[in-house]
Amino acid sequence: MNSEIKIIAIVGAGVIGAGWAARCLHRGIDVIVTDLSADAERGLREVVANAEGALNSLSLAPRRKKGTLTFTTNLAEAVSQADFVQENAPEREDLKRNLLAEISKHVGPEVIIASSSSGLLPSRIQVDCVRPERVIIGHPFNPVYLLPLVEVLGGELTDGKYVDQAIEFYTSIGMQALKVRKEVEGYISDRLQEALWREALHMVADGVATTDEIDQAVIYGPGLRWAFMGTCLTFHLAGGEQGMRHMLEQFGPALQLPWTKLKAPELTDQLIDRMVEGTQEQAKGYSIRDLEKLRDNCLVSIMQSLRSFDYASGSTLKRDEERQYADTSGSTDWSASDDLSKPLELHTDKVHPEWVDYNGHMTESRYLQVFGDASDALYQYVGVNAEYHANGNSYYTVETHINNIMEVAAHAPLKVSTQLLGLDNKRLHFIHNIYNAKDDTLLATGEQMVLHVDTNAAKACPAKPEILEILQKIMDAHAHLPAPERRSREMAVPAPRN
Amino acid sequence: MNSEIKIIAIVGAGVIGAGWAARCLHRGIDVIVTDLSADAERGLREVVANAEGALNSLSLAPRRKKGTLTFTTNLAEAVSQADFVQENAPEREDLKRNLLAEISKHVGPEVIIASSSSGLLPSRIQVDCVRPERVIIGHPFNPVYLLPLVEVLGGELTDGKYVDQAIEFYTSIGMQALKVRKEVEGYISDRLQEALWREALHMVADGVATTDEIDQAVIYGPGLRWAFMGTCLTFHLAGGEQGMRHMLEQFGPALQLPWTKLKAPELTDQLIDRMVEGTQEQAKGYSIRDLEKLRDNCLVSIMQSLRSFDYASGSTLKRDEERQYADTSGSTDWSASDDLSKPLELHTDKVHPEWVDYNGHMTESRYLQVFGDASDALYQYVGVNAEYHANGNSYYTVETHINNIMEVAAHAPLKVSTQLLGLDNKRLHFIHNIYNAKDDTLLATGEQMVLHVDTNAAKACPAKPEILEILQKIMDAHAHLPAPERRSREMAVPAPRN
Repeated sequence: MNSEIKIIAIVGAGVIGAGWAARCLHRGIDVIVTDLSADAERGLREVVANAEGALNSLSLAPRRKKGTLTFTTNLAEAVSQADFVQENAPEREDLKRNLLAEISKHVGPEVIIASSSSGLLPSRIQVDCVRPERVIIGHPFNPVYLLPLVEVLGGELTDGKYVDQAIEFYTSIGMQALKVRKEVEGYISDRLQEALWREALHMVADGVATTDEIDQAVIYGPGLRWAFMGTCLTFHLAGGEQGMRHMLEQFGPALQLPWTKLKAPELTDQLIDRMVEGTQEQAKGYSIRDLEKLRDNCLVSIMQSLRSFDYASGSTLKRDEERQYADTSGSTDWSASDDLSKPLELHTDKVHPEWVDYNGHMTESRYLQVFGDASDALYQYVGVNAEYHANGNSYYTVETHINNIMEVAAHAPLKVSTQLLGLDNKRLHFIHNIYNAKDDTLLATGEQMVLHVDTNAAKACPAKPEILEILQKIMDAHAHLPAPERRSREMAVPAPRN
Repeated sequence: MNSEIKIIAIVGAGVIGAGWAARCLHRGIDVIVTDLSADAERGLREVVANAEGALNSLSLAPRRKKGTLTFTTNLAEAVSQADFVQENAPEREDLKRNLLAEISKHVGPEVIIASSSSGLLPSRIQVDCVRPERVIIGHPFNPVYLLPLVEVLGGELTDGKYVDQAIEFYTSIGMQALKVRKEVEGYISDRLQEALWREALHMVADGVATTDEIDQAVIYGPGLRWAFMGTCLTFHLAGGEQGMRHMLEQFGPALQLPWTKLKAPELTDQLIDRMVEGTQEQAKGYSIRDLEKLRDNCLVSIMQSLRSFDYASGSTLKRDEERQYADTSGSTDWSASDDLSKPLELHTDKVHPEWVDYNGHMTESRYLQVFGDASDALYQYVGVNAEYHANGNSYYTVETHINNIMEVAAHAPLKVSTQLLGLDNKRLHFIHNIYNAKDDTLLATGEQMVLHVDTNAAKACPAKPEILEILQKIMDAHAHLPAPERRSREMAVPAPRN
């Protein structure tokens, strides 16, 4: 293999081949795709175009100029120019064996020939190749341009140095290479997927469940964990404070029950030890409680992500929130007995771990999010709630001035005070102060001018009298407060002193 | 069952019981937990405390006052007060049968008795109960307070109305109830999980892989999809434009291969039809391309969530970005031949779908994120890059003024122009304009004052001469540009006209 892959040949332009092409192009590698069918080019270019959008939104990291894509039905022409070949033909041993042999005749001696096979044994498909020692499996997952996993293994004739070189290459294009140490049909990932898939087929065949019910049984439950924690570590946590050993004691007997058509292996002492030691090593010294917190943070974040697409468990969350908002619509938090002689304190939060930047500090835009949440709390307080919005009225922010005073790290508790500065029947002017609730340090101020609008007509209009009445009471009280120190002013670099 | 559940009894205070307690408390339900062991109370209260943090960050929706938690070792006392009973004892049929019978003696006739069993047949554990018709399975997933899935089914003696009532209750506490229509060991979810788990145990027993390798084979690949798309719909997409039918043609033969120890069912025409029709129904009229885009958006969002925890595929992404930043560190995008006679255009983006609020408009805080990204582009342009940061120098934002002019919907293309307004050796003052790139409408302006800091000493210091030299060239050119219309000014509600 050359020290750097500049040109890759992709053999087979189906879903997997096109996915490899998209990933490599995005990383600045020139891609030559070959397929028996000239028709394949259209689908290929569609996948590549779709993938580009997803890849652009995945990361803002700087990257090289995109590679160029060419297509040919001539196999020899495609692979002879390449520094690396990735084969993606259908899963038939004879077909792959012949195809790899053909490829091997047209490439340089050091060019790695990788097969995307999902489970065939490399020893059996490499045998007819010129220099079979550079033939490996590089098994990716759909969509190849996004999912990082690639399983890498060689056959009996493979030289381990090519496995290592392939891992290096796959890592350089953003993938997570898993070296499969023992050659086995289905490798590791597809053995797991295939067991689940065959059980699913049995259930459909037996009339136990529909495909939709089977998918629901994954995506609202175990699948949410599988996005970041495998079955072994998950079950380590299911065992409570004693982890995997307790879990095997508690669920070991269930291995004898017909909970799947797959018979379990005997739970020998050796197997128990391997499971316990393996998961302990995975826990990397973290306690069960620490791992639970990490798991929960990841779950919360994933469900919130899915909520933004109103899909799967994100839809469950969204519907649930709608019910909760409906339960409280029409209510006003304001009470005549509230003390208005000081700024309102209506909103608290903490610095969520996903709010911090590279340096561990809360990023700029999250300050504005906290100000926005504090404004929402103010609106709710005076009666601008879900019901008010449903009637086509709302306050829109037209101007915001932020002063950043101190930095703050993840998990710090935040509280916000709110002082009204101005009011007429369309305009409302206020300033929020964000404090670290632990020591009352002022972190930032956010001054906002908001305008009352008729949301259907999309133009300014007076607020309802019942809202203005409460706002005026607060305004009258706050008019006696000292003017805030950081109230807005013109921004300018001072003129140099002579 | 009462029309509303005010008090729930949780029998068994292990991981699952404590999880139910946390979920119910957070939803304003009073919870009585009972366990044979008085020691269980400590672990219970720890789980409940941990869960509260996760639940608070999951949703900002208004909610009822938290319920109260009591603990007793007296089973009869606990269940006799409850409107609903949830049992969480170990998975032993005889134990559960006796326990449910005992519970049924102490509760009112309409109180539902639900078992959290992971796979036992309800018909076999309900038989000794008083009024077995109200005994059901409500099988949740760990952590119960976050994962929405609950499988609900009755036994031969169960009256379907109690199944429906239980589903209504579980939905009211934010869960996604899956009605299991056919009574079968392991229900649906655990049959799938258990097949995967037993295959994993076989691999460990056979020395094929460690627990860590098995978990890697899930979390970097198929598991990321399983968070929102089950195996059936995923394989529908794997079939390319023709979906499941093509997938079964292509991978059908692999069902005969030893890719797992579980034998597949025969792929009859009937089974093929059920799989194709089922997944077509799941697709709900969306094309394969539409589903691919949805899948990709979800994957991107999940990997970005995990990046913030530097965990699983999020770590892969983070390491990959670090490599890409390192590749370009030390570079400066500025070129002496650039046209500086108009504002710089250094940043483009689009309104990401997760940036929009309830009304479909980009939320306030995301404007500041776009301004921040545009500032980063400016820094990179003048040479304030990763290498510069690594040497302990950076620009920090001290003040920001935002004017919101027009709203913008998801997916709209954005471009940002940047005009320098002021410069000295420590301060830099500029204004960004965000435009809709489709029609050049001005959406918002963001004026910022940033301060050059020594990040180690955490105090202001002059920028390096090579940076100031480039900035001064831009400043000299921009000094001839007209002053921006929306330059900052004091914010105030105008005095009423008389």
